[in-house]
Amino acid sequence: MHPAQVVASAFAFTILVGTALLMLPNARVGPDSATFMEALFTATSAVCVTGLTVVDTATYWTPFGQIVILALIQVGGFGIMTFASVIGLAVVRKLSLRSRINAAAEAKSVGLEDVKGLVVGVVKISLIIEAAVAVLLTIRFLFGYGEPFGRAVWLGVFHSVSSFNNAGFALFSDNMISYATDPWICLPICAAIILGGLGFPVIMQLRKHLRTPLKWTMNTRIVVAGTIVLLVFGSVYITALEWNNPNTLGPMDWQGKLLAGFFQSVQTRTAGFNSIDIGQMDSASLLGMDVLMLIGAGPAGTAGGIKITTFAVLFFILWAEVRGDVAVNVFGKRLSRAVHRQAITIVLLAVAVVITATAALMVMTDISLDALLFEAISAFGTVGLSTGITAGLPPAGQVILILLMFIGRLGPITFASALALRERRSTYELPKERPIIG
Amino acid sequence: MHPAQVVASAFAFTILVGTALLMLPNARVGPDSATFMEALFTATSAVCVTGLTVVDTATYWTPFGQIVILALIQVGGFGIMTFASVIGLAVVRKLSLRSRINAAAEAKSVGLEDVKGLVVGVVKISLIIEAAVAVLLTIRFLFGYGEPFGRAVWLGVFHSVSSFNNAGFALFSDNMISYATDPWICLPICAAIILGGLGFPVIMQLRKHLRTPLKWTMNTRIVVAGTIVLLVFGSVYITALEWNNPNTLGPMDWQGKLLAGFFQSVQTRTAGFNSIDIGQMDSASLLGMDVLMLIGAGPAGTAGGIKITTFAVLFFILWAEVRGDVAVNVFGKRLSRAVHRQAITIVLLAVAVVITATAALMVMTDISLDALLFEAISAFGTVGLSTGITAGLPPAGQVILILLMFIGRLGPITFASALALRERRSTYELPKERPIIG
Ligand SMILES: [K+]
Ligand SMILES: [K+]
Repeated sequence: MHPAQVVASAFAFTILVGTALLMLPNARVGPDSATFMEALFTATSAVCVTGLTVVDTATYWTPFGQIVILALIQVGGFGIMTFASVIGLAVVRKLSLRSRINAAAEAKSVGLEDVKGLVVGVVKISLIIEAAVAVLLTIRFLFGYGEPFGRAVWLGVFHSVSSFNNAGFALFSDNMISYATDPWICLPICAAIILGGLGFPVIMQLRKHLRTPLKWTMNTRIVVAGTIVLLVFGSVYITALEWNNPNTLGPMDWQGKLLAGFFQSVQTRTAGFNSIDIGQMDSASLLGMDVLMLIGAGPAGTAGGIKITTFAVLFFILWAEVRGDVAVNVFGKRLSRAVHRQAITIVLLAVAVVITATAALMVMTDISLDALLFEAISAFGTVGLSTGITAGLPPAGQVILILLMFIGRLGPITFASALALRERRSTYELPKERPIIG
Repeated sequence: MHPAQVVASAFAFTILVGTALLMLPNARVGPDSATFMEALFTATSAVCVTGLTVVDTATYWTPFGQIVILALIQVGGFGIMTFASVIGLAVVRKLSLRSRINAAAEAKSVGLEDVKGLVVGVVKISLIIEAAVAVLLTIRFLFGYGEPFGRAVWLGVFHSVSSFNNAGFALFSDNMISYATDPWICLPICAAIILGGLGFPVIMQLRKHLRTPLKWTMNTRIVVAGTIVLLVFGSVYITALEWNNPNTLGPMDWQGKLLAGFFQSVQTRTAGFNSIDIGQMDSASLLGMDVLMLIGAGPAGTAGGIKITTFAVLFFILWAEVRGDVAVNVFGKRLSRAVHRQAITIVLLAVAVVITATAALMVMTDISLDALLFEAISAFGTVGLSTGITAGLPPAGQVILILLMFIGRLGPITFASALALRERRSTYELPKERPIIG
């Protein structure tokens, strides 16, 4: 089996185990068990670290059910980070093998040792960041809100893990709306989300070379710069459009507006918490968030979407064309031409999947385009934000979301790696010709 | 001045002249003159062969006003076809100059003689096709609907010119809804639209080599194949989704459904007539039409959009990646690599313009995303279909549509030609590197 098939099977198996566990009578509050659909949807959403829900996580599931969800999130987060990092390493090795034939000894393919090292690294980084954020949150829940110690720890751990893994599951029925203006809750969560979204290779490099950006790889530079640009743009866009909306930022003071606007912008890096009611946001805000959610965050991290790097490649191609450069140069290096076509392919497929799914949802329901497009992108980008329509969708619509979450979680990474790792059939060059563009 | 600036200025000047003429008291029915905004919007829509209207063409304008509109359509259609054909020729000449240095005599740049020849060719082809379709329509209006001879000729000429130039202006208050099931009206109009949408270079080549496709250029092959694929897809998609819609195809018999579904599919090639009420269509149909309208038809014709060739280049890149080919080969030729980046650039800019305009319209109004997105793509693609919101938009919204029509009409062609014709700064190659994609 191809490694991608192994990983897809492992994800599917984990989802099925999660579904079975969530269908146990003691996972759901009250005498009844959860239905198969509820359990399957929740397990998929957790393993794919999406955060879309058809039932209220806080009141529907027992502490046991919530622990299952937390475990699924952690397994899903570990899984995707490790897999993507291994793939990333394999691509680097393969490319260096190609370009330095004389130094072949240096360029062996990825072995079991490397994978072990990566897994240990991913687990260590994850646990350290999750622990730090959990402590901060626990202290706040304990002293700021007078929660009993045990519950404060549970809230701290759950939301920390949910944040770092960009899962967006919350143990409050209104998600984070009650804490919209509390920086002691919102900012640690944002920090965990952003770190998780940078991706493992970037975190590792920042740990070593934080103060020497000249040593950063192109991947690190693009992810860091892209994260900053998207966060600033998203914060300004959302805060400006919602500033006077009486159902979202309107009633807050200006510090609150800025915090909640920033928080919501961070969520599109594809965490999926919400501290304002998404369903009450202006449709222009939703459209902007659609774009941000589809882009997502860095590769080989816990975030979804097509990834900042993929989007950046297209942007740099555009910029080189506008400037009239022969090569696409980024931060003093030439962007490999093979990457151009891979990025286009990923984006086209992503757009095609999202539009097809949205059209299918439109045929099934009478819900408006902006809510359905938002929902489809949220599922595909494994974001988990919703205007509130998830639970009301017909079963076939929920199946579409389940498929979108699964494809969105594994599709871009496996597809891109398959493209990058495959041996090209080398054919003779045909005479070239060009159609008229534009 | 750069040729593109000349053409943009000429278009702007023609629009201003048209605006002035339409503001004359005898252009509008009744004692009042049209307002500046009404006249500007109508003139822009006519010169850019879009067909969006803020007033009813049939009842608001006098025959004089309608003649002005017809003249603007014809000038706009001639203008864009000639300009695009000259540019296309210049690109071919320049490329052959580059690749055959020894045959430099053969590869001179485009001179006045060539332009004259092209203008004559464009005018001849346009008038022949328009005359043929006008005769067919006149006969039908005369004998099928008992219109008096003068009016039948006027209706035939107006709708023929409006069709071939992909303008979509109609002299009936319900556009073509009354003729939805009449093939003698609908099919000649569709023929004119499709021919205009193929583009001048393709029409010329088909005239010479209709029966010998082996002699066709890559441009002709892509446009012909793409037109067929998009027409079939659009017809099936629209007809299937609207089959039982009581407000569109529902009441018709099956021949009528097929005809009206095909007719509406042809309109997305960016003509803009409608024989069913667009505002009553399923939103899934609108979404599919969004995609078709953004793609548009062939280059160097009267249609708008990013053009079939641009979309096809992206599709072929995707297909080559999926197959694992080293080069992107199309119909036995290699697709020039420079074209890859140009196509990406055009599509990215088009999507960015449409999304930005849609977001701006959403901020200004409370209209739903599907209607506004449809309107923005219709304006940018110079299609002219509308769910019926055009006249009700605030003045700032109508200004956005005017800008979209102008940018959509001239942007892709001038921008693409600037990219294709520019001398590249040749820099030394930097060492290459790649970020992680997906
Ligand atoms: K998420
Ligand atoms: K049109």
